[in-house]
Amino acid sequence: MSRVFIVMGSDSDWPKVKAAAETIKKFEVSYVARVLSAHRTPAALEEALKEAEDSGVEVFIAAAGQAAHLAGVVASHTTKPVIGLPIANGALAGQDSLYSTVMMPPGVPVATVGIDNSTNAALLALQILAVADKGLANQLKKHRLDMGDKVKAKDAKIQKDLP
Amino acid sequence: MSRVFIVMGSDSDWPKVKAAAETIKKFEVSYVARVLSAHRTPAALEEALKEAEDSGVEVFIAAAGQAAHLAGVVASHTTKPVIGLPIANGALAGQDSLYSTVMMPPGVPVATVGIDNSTNAALLALQILAVADKGLANQLKKHRLDMGDKVKAKDAKIQKDLP
Amino acid sequence: MSRVFIVMGSDSDWPKVKAAAETIKKFEVSYVARVLSAHRTPAALEEALKEAEDSGVEVFIAAAGQAAHLAGVVASHTTKPVIGLPIANGALAGQDSLYSTVMMPPGVPVATVGIDNSTNAALLALQILAVADKGLANQLKKHRLDMGDKVKAKDAKIQKDLP
Amino acid sequence: MSRVFIVMGSDSDWPKVKAAAETIKKFEVSYVARVLSAHRTPAALEEALKEAEDSGVEVFIAAAGQAAHLAGVVASHTTKPVIGLPIANGALAGQDSLYSTVMMPPGVPVATVGIDNSTNAALLALQILAVADKGLANQLKKHRLDMGDKVKAKDAKIQKDLP
Amino acid sequence: MSRVFIVMGSDSDWPKVKAAAETIKKFEVSYVARVLSAHRTPAALEEALKEAEDSGVEVFIAAAGQAAHLAGVVASHTTKPVIGLPIANGALAGQDSLYSTVMMPPGVPVATVGIDNSTNAALLALQILAVADKGLANQLKKHRLDMGDKVKAKDAKIQKDLP
Amino acid sequence: MSRVFIVMGSDSDWPKVKAAAETIKKFEVSYVARVLSAHRTPAALEEALKEAEDSGVEVFIAAAGQAAHLAGVVASHTTKPVIGLPIANGALAGQDSLYSTVMMPPGVPVATVGIDNSTNAALLALQILAVADKGLANQLKKHRLDMGDKVKAKDAKIQKDLP
Amino acid sequence: MSRVFIVMGSDSDWPKVKAAAETIKKFEVSYVARVLSAHRTPAALEEALKEAEDSGVEVFIAAAGQAAHLAGVVASHTTKPVIGLPIANGALAGQDSLYSTVMMPPGVPVATVGIDNSTNAALLALQILAVADKGLANQLKKHRLDMGDKVKAKDAKIQKDLP
Amino acid sequence: MSRVFIVMGSDSDWPKVKAAAETIKKFEVSYVARVLSAHRTPAALEEALKEAEDSGVEVFIAAAGQAAHLAGVVASHTTKPVIGLPIANGALAGQDSLYSTVMMPPGVPVATVGIDNSTNAALLALQILAVADKGLANQLKKHRLDMGDKVKAKDAKIQKDLP
Repeated sequence: MSRVFIVMGSDSDWPKVKAAAETIKKFEVSYVARVLSAHRTPAALEEALKEAEDSGVEVFIAAAGQAAHLAGVVASHTTKPVIGLPIANGALAGQDSLYSTVMMPPGVPVATVGIDNSTNAALLALQILAVADKGLANQLKKHRLDMGDKVKAKDAKIQKDLP
Repeated sequence: MSRVFIVMGSDSDWPKVKAAAETIKKFEVSYVARVLSAHRTPAALEEALKEAEDSGVEVFIAAAGQAAHLAGVVASHTTKPVIGLPIANGALAGQDSLYSTVMMPPGVPVATVGIDNSTNAALLALQILAVADKGLANQLKKHRLDMGDKVKAKDAKIQKDLP
Repeated sequence: MSRVFIVMGSDSDWPKVKAAAETIKKFEVSYVARVLSAHRTPAALEEALKEAEDSGVEVFIAAAGQAAHLAGVVASHTTKPVIGLPIANGALAGQDSLYSTVMMPPGVPVATVGIDNSTNAALLALQILAVADKGLANQLKKHRLDMGDKVKAKDAKIQKDLP
Repeated sequence: MSRVFIVMGSDSDWPKVKAAAETIKKFEVSYVARVLSAHRTPAALEEALKEAEDSGVEVFIAAAGQAAHLAGVVASHTTKPVIGLPIANGALAGQDSLYSTVMMPPGVPVATVGIDNSTNAALLALQILAVADKGLANQLKKHRLDMGDKVKAKDAKIQKDLP
Repeated sequence: MSRVFIVMGSDSDWPKVKAAAETIKKFEVSYVARVLSAHRTPAALEEALKEAEDSGVEVFIAAAGQAAHLAGVVASHTTKPVIGLPIANGALAGQDSLYSTVMMPPGVPVATVGIDNSTNAALLALQILAVADKGLANQLKKHRLDMGDKVKAKDAKIQKDLP
Repeated sequence: MSRVFIVMGSDSDWPKVKAAAETIKKFEVSYVARVLSAHRTPAALEEALKEAEDSGVEVFIAAAGQAAHLAGVVASHTTKPVIGLPIANGALAGQDSLYSTVMMPPGVPVATVGIDNSTNAALLALQILAVADKGLANQLKKHRLDMGDKVKAKDAKIQKDLP
Repeated sequence: MSRVFIVMGSDSDWPKVKAAAETIKKFEVSYVARVLSAHRTPAALEEALKEAEDSGVEVFIAAAGQAAHLAGVVASHTTKPVIGLPIANGALAGQDSLYSTVMMPPGVPVATVGIDNSTNAALLALQILAVADKGLANQLKKHRLDMGDKVKAKDAKIQKDLP
Repeated sequence: MSRVFIVMGSDSDWPKVKAAAETIKKFEVSYVARVLSAHRTPAALEEALKEAEDSGVEVFIAAAGQAAHLAGVVASHTTKPVIGLPIANGALAGQDSLYSTVMMPPGVPVATVGIDNSTNAALLALQILAVADKGLANQLKKHRLDMGDKVKAKDAKIQKDLP
C-alpha cells in the first residue's frame, strides 16, 4: 500500500518528476510512480486509479505537459486531493500546461504548483498527509528550518564576493 | 443513427454551440447534441462515446471552456476525427481553452477551430463527411459561393456610406 | 477552534470569496474568514497566522489579486497546506495574480486553484481535511455524484432546445 | 493521383514537416509534398491547388510559421478539409503562427493541430480519410493500441529507476 | 483613378475603418474603399487588386481581424506599399490580428500600424504619397502643428481642474 | 517652484492621473500637472522639462498609454528620478504601456508602478522626497498606519456578513 | 545626400540591422546608418534628424529593442514615413519592442515590420521610394519574381528528399 | 551605516544582481547586499529590515524571480523607497516576476525596473539619493554624458562596417 500516487503522462517527464519521488522518499513516505497517459492509455489509467483508490492511496500527483489533461482526468475519478504539476515542453514553454492544469471547472479542483516544480508537488503532498500525521508534520517543520539555514549560509557566502 | 456527435462540457456553452447544430441541420445532416462533462460525468461520457462509436457516428465536435479537456478525452476514446471548439469564458478569455484543446500530444490529434467559432466547427465536420459524400460536397461548394455573394452585397452597400 | 482559515487581501475580494465560505459551511466544517493584507497589515497578518497555527487550524485559503503575495506570505509562516485563490481584477485580468500565486520557489508550495474559482478553493480544503475524516470523505463523494446528476439534468433539458 | 496534399511555406519548415510525410507513408496512403508560398508564389500556389482539386486530392495539410497565412489561403480555394500545422520559428515561438492559423473567419475553417506537431497533422488527415475507408480505420485503431503498448513499456521501464 | 485603395475583410470592420477614409478625404486625396475577403472572395479580391494595380493605385490599406491574412494577401499581389491595419474583434482582442499582420516572411513586407488605429493607417498612406508630393507634404506638416496646438489647448484646460 | 512634475501624454489620461495629484496635494507637497505629448509636442515637452529642471523640480511622474514613450523621453532629459505610470487603454489593455515604460535600456531607469495605479505613483514620489524630508517621512508613516486601520475596519465589517 | 536614413538604438542591434543596409545597397539606393539613442543621446539624435530632414532624406528606418521608443521619437520629429523595426533582445523576446513600436497614438504613425525582420524594413523603404521612381519599381518587381523562382527551386529540391 | 540595502531572494540571483552592487560602488555610495528569502527566511528578513531601517538605510533594492514577492514584502515593512528588480528564471522567463513585482496594491508602491536590469536598479537608487545630494547629482550628470559619448564612439565605429 502506497500513500502517494505519482502519475506522469510520458516517460519524457520523468527526469523532471523524479525529484518529487526523491523528496517523498527522503521523508520515508510510501509512493508509486507510473507512466500512464490520459490520451494514449485511458483504460489503463482508469484501472490504475481505481486500484489506487481501493488500496488506500491518500493523495495524487499528476504531471503533464502541453494540453495537460492528466491531473484533471485523475481528479474526475477521485475526491482525494489531486496535485497538478505542469511540465514545460514545446513551443509554449509551460504556459499551455499551466492553464490546462489550473483552470478546472467548479466542482473538480486540481491543486496546482509551479511549472516544473516537482519539489513543491512532493512537499504539498506531504503537507496534506501531515494534517493528520504529527510525525510527518514535525519532519516538515524541521525541513523548513533547515531550508532557512541553507539560505543563511548562502547569505554568508556572498559576503565574500561583494564588489 | 446520427453522423455528427456534438458534445459540450456545460449547458452554459449551449448558446454558443447552438450555431453548430443549426449549421449542420441546414445541410440536412443528422446529429446529436449532448451535455457531458469530462470532469463531472466521466463515466456517462465514456458510455455515451462507446454508444456513439457503435452506432456509427462519423465525426465528433467537442466544445469546452477554460481547462478544456473534453475534446482530448473524446479523442482518447476514438480514432474518428474529433473537432475541438474552444469556448471563451472566465478571466483568460479563451486563451486557456485554445491551448488546452490544440496542444495535444503526438498520436491523439484534435482538429481545433477558432475560439467560439461554432460555425467553423460545423462546417469542418461537414467537409470531413463530404470527402466521401458527393452531394454534401456540392452543397458545401454552393454554400461557399453564396457566402462570397453576401460579401459582394456588403461591398456594394458600404459604397453608399463612403465619406 | 476553526479547521479552515480563509484570508483575503482586501474586502473588495469578499463578493468572490464568499462562495468559498458558503461551500465550507454547507459541509458543516468550521472556518474563519479574515481581511488581512500582506502589504498593508503585515504585523496583524503574522499575528493572526500564529494564533491560527496555535489554535489548530488545519488548512489555509488565501485569496488576492494583482501582485498576489498573500498566499505566499501565509505559506512562509506555516507548513500546513495553503490554498492560493488568484482573484482577477485590474488591467491584467488575473494573469498577474495567477503567476504571483502559483510560481512559488521550491520549498514553499502554494496549492493554486483557477482564477476566481472560490468553489474549488473550498472543495480542495475539504478534500484535504477528508484524507483523515471518513465522514467528510463520504460527503464529498455524495457531492460529486449530485454534481453529475445536475449535468445529466441539463443534458436532458437542452434536448428540448435542439434546432 | 495523391490523396493527401502537403504544402509548406518554406523549405526551412521541411525538417519539421517531414514527420508528417513519413507517418502518411507508413499507412501506405499516397501524398505529395510541396514548397509553395502564399506570399512569394501566390500564382504557383493557386495553380497547384487547382490541379490538386482536379486530380482528386481529398485532404490538405498546410504548414507555415509566423504570420502563417498558408492554411487559410489553401482553405479559401477549396471546400475539402484543410489541416493547419503552425510552425514555431522566430521571436514569438509559434504563438503567432498558431493564432494566424486557427482564428479563421466563420465560413472557412482550418483544422488546426498543435504547434510543430507534424505527426498529429498526418494522423488527422488519415482519420479524415478513414471515415470512408474501413481498412485505414482498422490500421488507425491498431496504431492507437500499439501506442498504448509503448506507453506501458515505458511505465515498466521507469519502475527500475525509482528512488 | 484613385491613389489609395482601402480594403477590409468584412463590412463589420467598416465602423472602425471609416475614420481612415475620412482622414484621406480631408486631405483631398482620392481613394476607394472595398469589402473583399481573402478567404471568402479570393478571386474577386485578386481581380480587384489587378485592376487597382493597372489603374495606378499608389498605396494600399488592408484592414482585418483575427487571423488577419488580408494585408499579406494584398502584399503578395503587388510591390506597392501595403499598410496593414489590425482590427480587434473576438476573444483575443487584436493580439491575433496584430501578429497575423506584422510577422510577414522576409521579402513581402506589410507596414503595420496599431490595433484599430485607422487614423494612423490613413496618415501613413498620405506620408508615403507625400514623399513625392510637396503640396501634400506641406499639408501634413501643418496637420502635425495643428495637432500640437490641440494638445496645448488641452494642457491649458486641465489647469482649471487641478486639485 | 514645484517639487513634483506630473506629465501625461493625453488629456484622456487625466481622469486616472488626477488621483496622483490629489494624493500629493493631501500631503501638502507642491506639484504641477501638464498635458505634453512625446509624439505630438516634442519641442514643448523638451522646453517644459528644461524649465522644470531649472526651477528645481525634484521628481517626475509620467503617465501614458499604449506605446508609452513619455516616461522614457522624460528620463532621457534628466537624471532626476522619473516615475512611469502605465495607463491601460485600447486593445492591449495596458500590457503595451507596461512594457513600453518599464523595459528601459541600461543607463536610463524609469521607476515603474502598476498599470493605472496613480496612487502609487504619487506615494512613490513622496517617498523619494521623504528620504531627505523628515516631516514628510513621518506623514508617510502615519498614512501607512491609517491604511492598516482601514483594513482592520473592513475585516471587522465582513465578520457580520459571514455565511 | 542619402535617400534612406537608418538609425538604431545600440550598436548591439547592428548585426541584425546590417541586412537592411545590404538590401538597400543591392538596389543601389543611397543610405546612412547611425547609432543614436533616444534615451542616451537625445540631443544628438534630434540634431541628426534635423540634418537628415534638411538634406532631403525621404524615408527613415528605426531599429530598437525592449522599450523601443526610437521609431516613435523619430516620427515625432518628421512627417516623412518612419519604418519601425522591433529588435528581439532580453527576457520578453521582442514582444516588448513590437508593442512599443507599433502602438503609436493617432496622429504619429510608425510603419512597423516583423520582429528582427531587417529585410522587410529595407524592402518597405524601397517600396515607398518606388511610388515615384519607376526604375526602382521595376527592380522591385524583378526581385519579387526572383524570390518566387528561389521558392520553386527549393520545391524541386525537397522532392528528392521525400520519404 | 549603509545608504543602500540590496536584498535578493536566492544566491542564484547574485550573478545578475552583482552589477547593481558594482554600479553603486563605482559612485562610492555605501551599500549592503544580502540573501534573504521572503518565503524561506521570513523572520530573518523582517529582522534585517528593522535593523536596516534603524541604521538609517535610505533606499532598498529587492531582486527576485518567479512569484517575486520580495520587493513587496520589503515595501510592507518600510515607507522608504523600494526598488523592485524582477529576475528572469524558469519557464515564464521573467513575465511572472515582472507582474509579481510591479502590480502592487494602492498604498504600497514598488519602483520597478526592467527584467534583469541591475544597472538601472542601482542608478535609480543613486538618483533617489541624489535628490538631496548635490555631489551625487553631479556624478550622475557626468555619467549620463559619458554614456552618450560611448554611444557616439560606437556610431563612429559602425561607419567602418557599412555595406
